[in-house]
Amino acid sequence: MSGKLSIIMYSGTADKFIPLGVLSQAAAAMGMQVQIFVTGFALLGFLKEKKEIPFPSEFKSMAPAVMEGMKKNKVPTWYDMLKEAKQMGAHVSACSMMAGVMGITKEALDPIVDDIVGAATFLQKSDGGQVLFI
Amino acid sequence: MSGKLSIIMYSGTADKFIPLGVLSQAAAAMGMQVQIFVTGFALLGFLKEKKEIPFPSEFKSMAPAVMEGMKKNKVPTWYDMLKEAKQMGAHVSACSMMAGVMGITKEALDPIVDDIVGAATFLQKSDGGQVLFI
Amino acid sequence: MSGKLSIIMYSGTADKFIPLGVLSQAAAAMGMQVQIFVTGFALLGFLKEKKEIPFPSEFKSMAPAVMEGMKKNKVPTWYDMLKEAKQMGAHVSACSMMAGVMGITKEALDPIVDDIVGAATFLQKSDGGQVLFI
Repeated sequence: MSGKLSIIMYSGTADKFIPLGVLSQAAAAMGMQVQIFVTGFALLGFLKEKKEIPFPSEFKSMAPAVMEGMKKNKVPTWYDMLKEAKQMGAHVSACSMMAGVMGITKEALDPIVDDIVGAATFLQKSDGGQVLFI
Repeated sequence: MSGKLSIIMYSGTADKFIPLGVLSQAAAAMGMQVQIFVTGFALLGFLKEKKEIPFPSEFKSMAPAVMEGMKKNKVPTWYDMLKEAKQMGAHVSACSMMAGVMGITKEALDPIVDDIVGAATFLQKSDGGQVLFI
Repeated sequence: MSGKLSIIMYSGTADKFIPLGVLSQAAAAMGMQVQIFVTGFALLGFLKEKKEIPFPSEFKSMAPAVMEGMKKNKVPTWYDMLKEAKQMGAHVSACSMMAGVMGITKEALDPIVDDIVGAATFLQKSDGGQVLFI
């Protein structure tokens, strides 16, 4: 496949990081050009100093079973899937505006983040491809 | 219209099933090729043995009014809208990875689900069309 | 850029209005054709009579810091960004079905909403462009 997949990673609850990893990895493996724009509360998952990321309150009681099922089925963490995607060319940007609003500097971000850019730059790069808002 | 609409059904709160039904049905009626990829907590809405699906905690107090309004305005349930979409050609797949993680077998899934596939298969089929992450 | 960006504004928590404003404004400024379809609990943010819109329960404790950061960094409100987008051609529709279900009339909606249409009309107008579900 020759398409482009752009993901706006916004919501920030723990469950949403799973499809980020899976879709990035799968799309990159298929030869798609993958770019991720991390913004909103999802930025908290990309800090160098790890924080506990909450599961959605409505499904909190199921979180332990899901985490257990992922281990049992040897599903890689979202972070490892994203790292694999990056080795196949995926690009990860953090949103300059929201990083500023939340007081997050480049230094505070995990090195998996390639750069800090604005929404316009991201939109420009996503031109002609598919865009997901997670 | 000749396009393709692919929906990744992930979040799983009760409100999100309404746009799944509406968009699937509307797109299929317009002649679009519709495919749905059910994954994450949304899988709980597709079990043969029905469970109560929670409304988002922030809007829980409004849930009864919304349900009442749907009945009063004779809006079909999301399930009936999706069934209609299927009669017009829509295809419903469950995510093999998340079904495995959550211990959900093909037998446990409602027959409205056509098959269980991986994310790569879904992405391949969505090539060249629009993709929504709900 | 010559593309089209269509946004289905559904979820309705306060955080999600920020990307609505930012993406609409950025896309319109880049010459993209922008249309927004307001539906679900997000309709509550478009009422003439303003209501307090809740932050997601999982990140409620961070809401004051985010609001403070937006003020400090002079980020315009989502409403002002959307108004700017509209001056550059963006179009805002409310969903007829959900407005009906929630008992919301045209008169109750903020004048930033241009019209009330059905999902099929929205899908038709989004043909060939990118669609986000927020």
